[in-house]
Amino acid sequence: MRMIDIIEKKRDGNELTKEEISFFVKGASNDSLPDYQISALLMAIYINGMTDYELEILTSEMAESGEVKRWDNVDGLTCDKHSTGGVGDKTSLIVVPIAASLGVKVVKMSGKGLGHTGGTVDKLEAIKGFCTVLTPEKLTENVKKVGAVMIGQSGNLAPADKRLYAIRDVTGTVSSIPLIASSIMSKKIASGSKCIVLDVKCGSGAFMKTPERAYELAEKMVEIGRRKNRKMSAVVTDMDIPLGYAIGNSLEVIEAVNVLKGGQKGDLYDICIELAAHMLMLSLGLPLEECRKKAVMAVESGSAYEKLKEIVSAQGGDVSYLEDTEMFERSENVYEIRAKQSGYIGYMNCEGIGNTSVILGAGRSKKDQAIDHSAGIILCKKTGDEVTEGEVIAKLYTNQADNIALAAELFESSIDITNTRPEKKPLIYSVIE
Amino acid sequence: MRMIDIIEKKRDGNELTKEEISFFVKGASNDSLPDYQISALLMAIYINGMTDYELEILTSEMAESGEVKRWDNVDGLTCDKHSTGGVGDKTSLIVVPIAASLGVKVVKMSGKGLGHTGGTVDKLEAIKGFCTVLTPEKLTENVKKVGAVMIGQSGNLAPADKRLYAIRDVTGTVSSIPLIASSIMSKKIASGSKCIVLDVKCGSGAFMKTPERAYELAEKMVEIGRRKNRKMSAVVTDMDIPLGYAIGNSLEVIEAVNVLKGGQKGDLYDICIELAAHMLMLSLGLPLEECRKKAVMAVESGSAYEKLKEIVSAQGGDVSYLEDTEMFERSENVYEIRAKQSGYIGYMNCEGIGNTSVILGAGRSKKDQAIDHSAGIILCKKTGDEVTEGEVIAKLYTNQADNIALAAELFESSIDITNTRPEKKPLIYSVIE
Repeated sequence: MRMIDIIEKKRDGNELTKEEISFFVKGASNDSLPDYQISALLMAIYINGMTDYELEILTSEMAESGEVKRWDNVDGLTCDKHSTGGVGDKTSLIVVPIAASLGVKVVKMSGKGLGHTGGTVDKLEAIKGFCTVLTPEKLTENVKKVGAVMIGQSGNLAPADKRLYAIRDVTGTVSSIPLIASSIMSKKIASGSKCIVLDVKCGSGAFMKTPERAYELAEKMVEIGRRKNRKMSAVVTDMDIPLGYAIGNSLEVIEAVNVLKGGQKGDLYDICIELAAHMLMLSLGLPLEECRKKAVMAVESGSAYEKLKEIVSAQGGDVSYLEDTEMFERSENVYEIRAKQSGYIGYMNCEGIGNTSVILGAGRSKKDQAIDHSAGIILCKKTGDEVTEGEVIAKLYTNQADNIALAAELFESSIDITNTRPEKKPLIYSVIE
Repeated sequence: MRMIDIIEKKRDGNELTKEEISFFVKGASNDSLPDYQISALLMAIYINGMTDYELEILTSEMAESGEVKRWDNVDGLTCDKHSTGGVGDKTSLIVVPIAASLGVKVVKMSGKGLGHTGGTVDKLEAIKGFCTVLTPEKLTENVKKVGAVMIGQSGNLAPADKRLYAIRDVTGTVSSIPLIASSIMSKKIASGSKCIVLDVKCGSGAFMKTPERAYELAEKMVEIGRRKNRKMSAVVTDMDIPLGYAIGNSLEVIEAVNVLKGGQKGDLYDICIELAAHMLMLSLGLPLEECRKKAVMAVESGSAYEKLKEIVSAQGGDVSYLEDTEMFERSENVYEIRAKQSGYIGYMNCEGIGNTSVILGAGRSKKDQAIDHSAGIILCKKTGDEVTEGEVIAKLYTNQADNIALAAELFESSIDITNTRPEKKPLIYSVIE
């Protein structure tokens, strides 16, 4: 078999066979294929798409390119949750304890942040002592005892995806539905959970700019998962406005704790209840409406907050940080962004705001870059809010004073103040159950 | 400017600017762009095409990526001729002397053979002593004195094309009309001739499989040339049957000499008269019909044959080989292919036949491979000819006895013997003047 024949076949819009896709994925993981042939095929896939059959095979082959986990020794169906990434998206920190407090066995594997979107692993590591790498034995023990683990992705999970993603990132082939779907689902399938809830974001801070494209992606991923005998459900949610008010690692942990303590309602809380309800529905087999009520109760009763402390403690984290969030280290510099005119926040460019937090030190523009857990943004106003001239819209936190001017400029160019109140958009666009 | 933005723009089907194309071509020639980004853009161009404006700019930028020749010190308009490549295509050896004998100043720059198609440089080098590399002074002197030179392409002609071609060859992006048109025309424009005649092949031995695709390619190239103030003309000709009867370097020189001596009419002769007439039309400004008559007369009178001897002699070649073609060394082994049944030659796969000659030693499967000038094929029958069982269809010549079985098998699988005579197809499909 020759790679060039595979490239030409996809270039001409034809369906690849299982053998051809397998040849490609193996060649990508064992480095026998050169980057330039992989990038040519990726571009052909980007433009010509993939059939459902091709997508299923590509995902399976990528999942099987490395370690495949099984949770047979855990009672009950383990459940995973994945977000396609956004700005201020700390839902995992809230959703996982809610679900676990209600008896769901949660194995949450997360990535590190890259570009304008944050990563759950970085947020967790803002908690002193919290360890995101566990031995296989400790992992199983924690799932059994505590009901949930929140860990980083194993290095050998879907290694083919690592190579493909690195090439896609520099060849304009990232935002392709089959390539995104296979990348996400290969890792989810290799992680071994039987139930998977997807939070597919759309808007200015997401890969998918429209709800329609996000729905299409969600549908494909649900289909792949179901063909692989996973219980699947997906929620298409807004990422045209940052989620919640905090962006940046320890700032987001503090906000998550507030939500779990019942002290903050609104967009973040609503999405978390919905996502947790889906996890309950899949794992416990109860009707969605009943699950929503249970999720609300878990927060109201404080049991979800108690579960977060259990999880943190079981992974070596210092629980006193959660009990008194004033203990988190604060950045040396706080810079206030003030409204230049009166009116309404008409639009927020989430990608710009996410990149502002990267400049402040909260994220990475390159892999393996160190991050500053205390840096970030607290939004005081969001899209739709009324502002008067001079009022504080946001506070920028950083230990890098030199970067404040650049960050402030980017933040200001990422919001619009308008004379009329913008139309309110949905927070949750659609649900696939 | 970032390459990834250029890739994404073309991926989405938008028109690139002059600055963007220039950035890409410069990055390809000075090696600042990695192969994988070039291949992603080439695939996007392959699938989404290019506008006429983009094609013109791409060609100009590639032409200007290296040395650009001028022939201002030669009286009259210099004329070049280019074939898109085929099997048994020795037209240059015949057309150049015909045109030069009638006063056209010909600067014919040729490539080496690669894959199933032969190269004029290899054929010329079959003549003892013939030198395809001349100093700039000698080159100008020969054009002035003899009226024609036949040389290899300078290493620094359109270097961007060299890099792009090497990547296209291994990424399934060869047979794209804008990429072929810009590749050919950038070299033709950099070679500096004011008149250019194109022989665009179609059929099983050509990149363009149909006359329609070949015409489209011819039209694009003519358009580019005219925008660059070149006098252009193009002929779309058949390459579904090898041209003439000889395939392989010295065998083709012998056939060319026979045609020039008036001893062989048929497809090869007809195409040569047509191509030579176009060169006369462009360079001398005479009506095409009159030029055809002049070309025929140049062969009939023997003046074209005399001109070939002059050209060969002026470039150091031993003319006695032309006067007595028995002097060419013959291969040690001659293997006869015989008809397995009676009927008609219904179809010849030119690519398969070209590859047979490569196996015999007449061509290269990889760049810089040594070739055997005496190896090749003499066809005794061609498509449409009647054969009786056991009759000799072709003779294979080689010094590599071990390869005969493989070559014979490939040759036999490249022809069909049918019960009915196949429909006769045109030799010349269309002309753009």
